[in-house]
Amino acid sequence: MSTLPDPSAGAAVKAADRAHVFHSWSAQGLIDPPAVAGAEGAYFWDYDGNRYLDFSSQLVNTNIGHQHPKVVAAVQEQAGRLCTIAPGFAVDVRSEAARLVAGRTPGDLDKIFFTNGGAEAVENAVRMARLHTGRPKLLSAYRSYHGATAAAINLTGDPRRWPSDTASAGVVHFWGPYLYRSPFHATSEEEECARALAHLEDTIVFEGPQTIAAIILESVVGTAGILVPPAGYLAGVRELCDRHGIVFILDEVMAGFGRTGRWFAADHWGVTPDLLTFAKGVNSGYVPLGGVAISAEIAATFDRRPYPGGLTYSGHPLACASAVATIEAMAEEGIVEHAAHLGEHVLGPGLRALAERHPSVGEVRGMGVFWALELVKDRTTREPLVPYNAAGEAAAPMNAFAAACKKSGLWPFVNMNRTHVVPPCTLTEAEAREGLAILDEALTVADSHTV
Amino acid sequence: MSTLPDPSAGAAVKAADRAHVFHSWSAQGLIDPPAVAGAEGAYFWDYDGNRYLDFSSQLVNTNIGHQHPKVVAAVQEQAGRLCTIAPGFAVDVRSEAARLVAGRTPGDLDKIFFTNGGAEAVENAVRMARLHTGRPKLLSAYRSYHGATAAAINLTGDPRRWPSDTASAGVVHFWGPYLYRSPFHATSEEEECARALAHLEDTIVFEGPQTIAAIILESVVGTAGILVPPAGYLAGVRELCDRHGIVFILDEVMAGFGRTGRWFAADHWGVTPDLLTFAKGVNSGYVPLGGVAISAEIAATFDRRPYPGGLTYSGHPLACASAVATIEAMAEEGIVEHAAHLGEHVLGPGLRALAERHPSVGEVRGMGVFWALELVKDRTTREPLVPYNAAGEAAAPMNAFAAACKKSGLWPFVNMNRTHVVPPCTLTEAEAREGLAILDEALTVADSHTV
Repeated sequence: MSTLPDPSAGAAVKAADRAHVFHSWSAQGLIDPPAVAGAEGAYFWDYDGNRYLDFSSQLVNTNIGHQHPKVVAAVQEQAGRLCTIAPGFAVDVRSEAARLVAGRTPGDLDKIFFTNGGAEAVENAVRMARLHTGRPKLLSAYRSYHGATAAAINLTGDPRRWPSDTASAGVVHFWGPYLYRSPFHATSEEEECARALAHLEDTIVFEGPQTIAAIILESVVGTAGILVPPAGYLAGVRELCDRHGIVFILDEVMAGFGRTGRWFAADHWGVTPDLLTFAKGVNSGYVPLGGVAISAEIAATFDRRPYPGGLTYSGHPLACASAVATIEAMAEEGIVEHAAHLGEHVLGPGLRALAERHPSVGEVRGMGVFWALELVKDRTTREPLVPYNAAGEAAAPMNAFAAACKKSGLWPFVNMNRTHVVPPCTLTEAEAREGLAILDEALTVADSHTV
Repeated sequence: MSTLPDPSAGAAVKAADRAHVFHSWSAQGLIDPPAVAGAEGAYFWDYDGNRYLDFSSQLVNTNIGHQHPKVVAAVQEQAGRLCTIAPGFAVDVRSEAARLVAGRTPGDLDKIFFTNGGAEAVENAVRMARLHTGRPKLLSAYRSYHGATAAAINLTGDPRRWPSDTASAGVVHFWGPYLYRSPFHATSEEEECARALAHLEDTIVFEGPQTIAAIILESVVGTAGILVPPAGYLAGVRELCDRHGIVFILDEVMAGFGRTGRWFAADHWGVTPDLLTFAKGVNSGYVPLGGVAISAEIAATFDRRPYPGGLTYSGHPLACASAVATIEAMAEEGIVEHAAHLGEHVLGPGLRALAERHPSVGEVRGMGVFWALELVKDRTTREPLVPYNAAGEAAAPMNAFAAACKKSGLWPFVNMNRTHVVPPCTLTEAEAREGLAILDEALTVADSHTV
């Protein structure tokens, strides 16, 4: 199970990493990637004997935790049967994975196009929407992340877009609801919702509805802040899309498969999009997998006209086998319900209690195992603890907070002036309390930077 | 090993497939995907007892054949240890996979950025080239395929680009060498090479070298025709790139890892690009994996400046473990050398002998286990057996040829008026002769459509 600490083995892994591995989103000469020796459940550990409670679920993907025995066994069994086969064939595990996903997606989203991950899912959803409508433009939100391939990064509404922005990609960004820093100067959720919908409708009207193929939204905004939409917002967007013949794409790559305490976040509001993108939680990333769930109407567009998109590993057998096992285990073990319970009875109350004790906590928001603490210098002005997109010295207060978490054995997810509390759905109550206690201590570091 | 035929199980797999799986590159209502029950080495089989010799290597990815025991064991072992971990960590199998790939790539391409497949590799190579040069434009060849995400599909030079063409993607297409249908009216390989380089230089001069970030080429063009470049061509492109400060990207997604009888096709001509993209053969697709090998100079660009790209599964442990096992098995078992031997002594001579007997064969070209038979109505005029991008009735002669192959137990790769002979690198000589005999018979069907 747990590997015995062996610092020299860790040093060799790190040396080979620095010699040959080019890391994402990083200045290669300024990083020192920690060497991971193993992982299980909500924990992973290094070669020096340090063990971390993973409150980031890696990149918010290990919803079922590390090394779930049923999923591991399914991967091993499928590896012995059939690792790979071309997308043009019918295969038992591909059929079954599609059936299980389609059985959980809302409404008539019953056809599944599998990809290797979230970015490719978004790329294909966009292609389907453009060809279905014959329209060129895409509307997406500031404060969003949709992936890093060309179309997906242009849809993204955070600074990761800037270096790859092609301006000509046909994307128009609008503002979504975010009451704590309301773009609409609203003072209640109801007002924020109404004003956000009016703003979106104005944008549609002035861009020209007949030029807009799709509106894409994260059901609950993920990395850009865990922004839970007000009650009527998604239904309002659905109505705008219907009225203007616009395809509604919900990106559930991060929010889907239990993260919010439901199979899909859209289930909280009973909204059915035309296309739904997924990845991460579908198999907790045990094998790369993503996909698009497609409505009957859009699928019919490609009934006699070929769908012009594909990839060598669409519906990869090993990935599909891991999705089948993951979904079955989540259903059998009540993992989605457990995530809802944790949010309602442990994490939500626990985080709100921290906010009462720590002046650096400006807002607590979330659901299930999908929470954000927004850290501020001043609760009255709501000035962020560090500026938007801060790096280096400017980000020091957040870096100090993260270092305090790690020192106490908790691996946090930190983005700008927020820490997200996004542990596996399988976290036990005892582990949740262990993590909350570490956060409690580390927040004193953030408090020291308040006015 | 071999599953007993069970047609009713196959029917259930197909029914679930038609209910829920959305297939790539297809009109969903017009396809009838064969159900695959199992695969081993160069064969796969269905539920009705039909067994096929795979002369397509699926989508030209199973270089090591199906279910290689060492790779299967490595996947199973890694699944038991650690399926997934975020890209920000150092991990033994990630380090080792990068070291093994970097040890085989030409020149100083020693840093490896891992992706989930070829399209994402191309997307990231393009991003690196644009940021390294500060230039916007990309030059790629007609008759090429680079993937189906937004940037990759715009680089592509075959009809799969058309439905997703955004025109504004900054891509300029030029013509590569192809003596059999020379865009330059050349009559020898030397002349074709010189004229193709002059054409490319003219294109660079008229587009403006200072606007061009990169030239991307498949080392040996794959799906668009298995076009082996004339001896001096890639060196000539390298020289043009050096002279004009343009990044040279070689796409080895299909040609790499043994397919041409060398680890990389570029090795045949001793050419080192600045960026090299790979996927498919790196692990024969047992787990989705691709990547970019990066020169020291381009890697240095991102030494103190963050590289702005990434994906959740970059350097996925299960994928990396399968790459380590694949590369080790290929080295230990001499699989690359075997592919070269097959090309030189069995497939090359065998296919040329078929061309002598069959008037429908206009040209045989290739190397290793990477061959094309170009089928024509008339050897004198070289009129293709079916028109460019033919579908339906217009494609009937090629469809009849493919059906004849399948009826005799050979799964062919067919594209437009060509059949590609792209079996696993591990094909035995006896299997090669079995396949050649089936092609010999099936070509009589193509012959019946000649003038």
